[in-house]
Amino acid sequence: MKNNYLFTLDFDVRDYELDLQGIVNNSVYQNYLEHARHRFLKASGADFAKLHDQGIDAVVTRVELDFKRSLVANDSFWVGLNWERKGRTQIAFLQDIYRGDELILRGKVFTACIQNGGIIIPDQLVKLFEDYQK
Amino acid sequence: MKNNYLFTLDFDVRDYELDLQGIVNNSVYQNYLEHARHRFLKASGADFAKLHDQGIDAVVTRVELDFKRSLVANDSFWVGLNWERKGRTQIAFLQDIYRGDELILRGKVFTACIQNGGIIIPDQLVKLFEDYQK
Amino acid sequence: MKNNYLFTLDFDVRDYELDLQGIVNNSVYQNYLEHARHRFLKASGADFAKLHDQGIDAVVTRVELDFKRSLVANDSFWVGLNWERKGRTQIAFLQDIYRGDELILRGKVFTACIQNGGIIIPDQLVKLFEDYQK
Amino acid sequence: MKNNYLFTLDFDVRDYELDLQGIVNNSVYQNYLEHARHRFLKASGADFAKLHDQGIDAVVTRVELDFKRSLVANDSFWVGLNWERKGRTQIAFLQDIYRGDELILRGKVFTACIQNGGIIIPDQLVKLFEDYQK
Repeated sequence: MKNNYLFTLDFDVRDYELDLQGIVNNSVYQNYLEHARHRFLKASGADFAKLHDQGIDAVVTRVELDFKRSLVANDSFWVGLNWERKGRTQIAFLQDIYRGDELILRGKVFTACIQNGGIIIPDQLVKLFEDYQK
Repeated sequence: MKNNYLFTLDFDVRDYELDLQGIVNNSVYQNYLEHARHRFLKASGADFAKLHDQGIDAVVTRVELDFKRSLVANDSFWVGLNWERKGRTQIAFLQDIYRGDELILRGKVFTACIQNGGIIIPDQLVKLFEDYQK
Repeated sequence: MKNNYLFTLDFDVRDYELDLQGIVNNSVYQNYLEHARHRFLKASGADFAKLHDQGIDAVVTRVELDFKRSLVANDSFWVGLNWERKGRTQIAFLQDIYRGDELILRGKVFTACIQNGGIIIPDQLVKLFEDYQK
Repeated sequence: MKNNYLFTLDFDVRDYELDLQGIVNNSVYQNYLEHARHRFLKASGADFAKLHDQGIDAVVTRVELDFKRSLVANDSFWVGLNWERKGRTQIAFLQDIYRGDELILRGKVFTACIQNGGIIIPDQLVKLFEDYQK
């Protein structure tokens, strides 16, 4: 399963992430996806915090999440990540969450880079991603 | 603007919701949308926590969020909500976020009701929503 | 009750703040206290985000929280705030949470101001707080 | 350093935990401490979620946190945990956070167990903790 993805990251559910239904709250899945993206950025040689210090803000422009199953207390799970270019300015991350080999969530996160208030062409980032070795 | 929506709820950005870019973190918008949905439920005569106690769990099946602008420190904003039926079992909430009359986020949240592990037809909920008077 | 406090702020519990016990998670009370402090700062003429832009970071040095009761779904509550100086460099906020006139939490939050990596004497802030009219 | 503690747990800072000052928000440290406590519970043979299902709710009665340093983006850190009995009904957790061997936070978390609305004597839990082998 993990072979289908360029980058994967393992997680454990933390009890404070559960809501009164005893399942991980919807918004928390975006936290998981963000953390996996930022780790992939870092593994590629970029860095979310350093980009910000350089005046470049990576922002999310669109999110699509399909919730298939719920994560519960004590679950271990992993996030798989692939990416593709979307037009000249956007990078789309295909990010899925699995508990073992059971699909929990299918996600698509579109991002853009902003500098001085305007969208920039993310060639530098794309080059880093292309050079990334699994 | 607010006239276009069946239900609206006012919010203020809280500083702990901002990330290091000084903008509200992506995942927090789902918190805003959830709180507005649950308030609409309550205003309609239903209640998320009581439904859970009755063994009915309202769950999110799909989320689509288009981020247009970012909310920042000290912003006031509001969430507008409409709803529509999606097939026999799902209810879709059209939920948009505005700062004054500036569109911040356009959201679509698909939900279903689960009882005893199976999806139920939410006629009872739909009736409450249909009877809701603005 | 509110008369005992220099500044108060009203809140509603949001369902995403509850954990699987159906009560507001411990850490969330610190969010409530922070939001009330920052609103008091703003009402006094200061601003957490602007202070940061000026190179002054208000940081928490110590927190004491006594949990008396739990907040649950649909609760409305308020935070009351008083302050006092603590030595030359610290400001202590006495912050209590009430549901109506029932005490929920008694809190004490010690803060300091950092500039260029060093602690500064917060006379400017203290002056604003002293001039604050309820 | 880790030798001074009965139980330790490793963490990485996640970017969504940072606030606009670029440091981990105060309330998030309580999340870290809670997750470490619940993992210790689990390692001892108890389980926060299962306790709740059995009608026993472990709740926090008092928190004392001394913030020494701030965690920032990309930091790795660990939580060390010891425990002691506090009177007949409370268990106090001494929980410290370190980045390498640099002290970040010194914490004390007092807890009690509630069943049928009343505080119970946590002998069962204490026995599990006493039997815990590092």
